[in-house]
Amino acid sequence: MPTLVLLRHGQSQWNLENRFTGWWDVGLTEKGTAEALDAGRRMKDAGLDFDIGFTSVQSRAIKTLNLALAAMDRVWIPVIKNWHLNERHYGGLTGLNKTDTAAKYGQTQVKIWRRSFDVPPPPMEPGSPFDLSTDRRYDGIAIPATESLKDTIARVLPYWEQAIVPELKAGKRVIIAAHGNSLRALVKHLSGLSDDEIVHEEIPTGQPMVYALADDLTAISRRYI
Amino acid sequence: MPTLVLLRHGQSQWNLENRFTGWWDVGLTEKGTAEALDAGRRMKDAGLDFDIGFTSVQSRAIKTLNLALAAMDRVWIPVIKNWHLNERHYGGLTGLNKTDTAAKYGQTQVKIWRRSFDVPPPPMEPGSPFDLSTDRRYDGIAIPATESLKDTIARVLPYWEQAIVPELKAGKRVIIAAHGNSLRALVKHLSGLSDDEIVHEEIPTGQPMVYALADDLTAISRRYI
Repeated sequence: MPTLVLLRHGQSQWNLENRFTGWWDVGLTEKGTAEALDAGRRMKDAGLDFDIGFTSVQSRAIKTLNLALAAMDRVWIPVIKNWHLNERHYGGLTGLNKTDTAAKYGQTQVKIWRRSFDVPPPPMEPGSPFDLSTDRRYDGIAIPATESLKDTIARVLPYWEQAIVPELKAGKRVIIAAHGNSLRALVKHLSGLSDDEIVHEEIPTGQPMVYALADDLTAISRRYI
Repeated sequence: MPTLVLLRHGQSQWNLENRFTGWWDVGLTEKGTAEALDAGRRMKDAGLDFDIGFTSVQSRAIKTLNLALAAMDRVWIPVIKNWHLNERHYGGLTGLNKTDTAAKYGQTQVKIWRRSFDVPPPPMEPGSPFDLSTDRRYDGIAIPATESLKDTIARVLPYWEQAIVPELKAGKRVIIAAHGNSLRALVKHLSGLSDDEIVHEEIPTGQPMVYALADDLTAISRRYI
């Protein structure tokens, strides 16, 4: 039976500060570091093991994976980092405190941006301090100006099919350390959730989600450990 | 000008305990962790930057690289882990305290094993607690029973030529986090040291060695930062 675990990064500095993060690269808090180590210990205790890891190019997810693998004595497995697994790009909301955003745009509008399936936030403005166009990790990549969840799914799933599915089909045990919305993309696909269901799916930080998959990679069940 | 930095892992638990380590997978001490972070800060302060990292499949080197890259905000660069960069295999000496080994075999014999170019220690005995034949990170690999420095060089250099040289020639800035003897292999090759010179070359833990290379990858100079 194929092994697949999805792991959202531990608490980040901007989770703590309640700010929209998106593609901005913030670190883990002490709590986030502890969550990542604890996730690794729980996976090891549950008898889980991995042959390959996938993560985004964002430090909070990479560090979460490194810490969890360290707790499992598995830092030596191959780890592939790819921007397709990045968090949803929050456009012009990036960096804003969620409370301030609600005061500025109104709670209703913010809820639409956060919880609609296909309405993106306003695009990031030119000259934003959170502009990533000169960040060389994105050289050659068309950085989105903003993304809806639907947009995020549209770039996560091709990567899943092209890079991750072949590893699972080859019998590799896979862990994916990523973000709330890039993992929603996978959960929607694997568990067949509707557009409305997936926007209400909350994936907690640092909790390994273990998928039971059939050989054709359809999901039998999922559970947190 | 191509950028190449060699970094020996920070102090390991068995460096501290003065035991022959070889391929056995021991972790970093607190001091080793601090050395790795400090190495990253010093490289950043020196204006160094990297496009790709190489390391062994041994935790102390991988963790050193991860920590140094974290201190440079570069955990997102690709990192390739390969057994060819492992430490020299110390055969039957693995796990022994160096003082006890001297008492058992005599100081002269131990010095020969440690400081000769081509005399390997006795092979690891079957049933050794440090046998790695069931460690799946080495599946499909002929694990050596013991290695001289010459043996180590013979498996490091083909990997250098095949995997690392092409990256440097493509203009990538490269960091290699590895071990005392796998790095000796590279230093001997790059700096043209004799067999006698290289066995007396001591590479300290956690000190970035920066190579100035010509475009054809011949070494102009090297320095620690």
